Amino acid sequence: MIFSVLVEVSLRPGIADPEGATIERALPALGFTGISSVRAGKAFRFDVDSGSEAEAVSTAQQLAERLLSNPVIEQCVVRVESSR
Amino acid sequence: MIFSVLVEVSLRPGIADPEGATIERALPALGFTGISSVRAGKAFRFDVDSGSEAEAVSTAQQLAERLLSNPVIEQCVVRVESSR
Repeated sequence: MIFSVLVEVSLRPGIADPEGATIERALPALGFTGISSVRAGKAFRFDVDSGSEAEAVSTAQQLAERLLSNPVIEQCVVRVESSR
Repeated sequence: MIFSVLVEVSLRPGIADPEGATIERALPALGFTGISSVRAGKAFRFDVDSGSEAEAVSTAQQLAERLLSNPVIEQCVVRVESSR
């Protein structure tokens, strides 16, 4: 089966996020109020050909930790979005 | 109420994604097989102080389209992850 996976890579809590902070500072001048805690990260989507959903998540988790993120400062969330 | 929002910004289908293509080409040599259709994008998380979930989604959608993405080549998906 083919599982569509979404990997969200974000900075760990406590790690400074200048991109998020810059967006947040710009918002009031652009007419957006009530927005806080802006954090910027990366999103990857890919298809995993695997026998089971658990195996697909495991493959995606390894891939995310080894290739898509820097585990020292970043964390990954893997989500299976659909299968076919 | 405070709504935690996740905005995923990804390239529209058909727009070339060199970052995703490079990751995909590197995978077999690194021991990952059965992975295809790799697409790279951005993920933003923020809190929206709003009266209702519908209003929070609308604010986040406007913010995503006006500030976080280039609507010519990118599309946004807004998701409310939690509220408090």
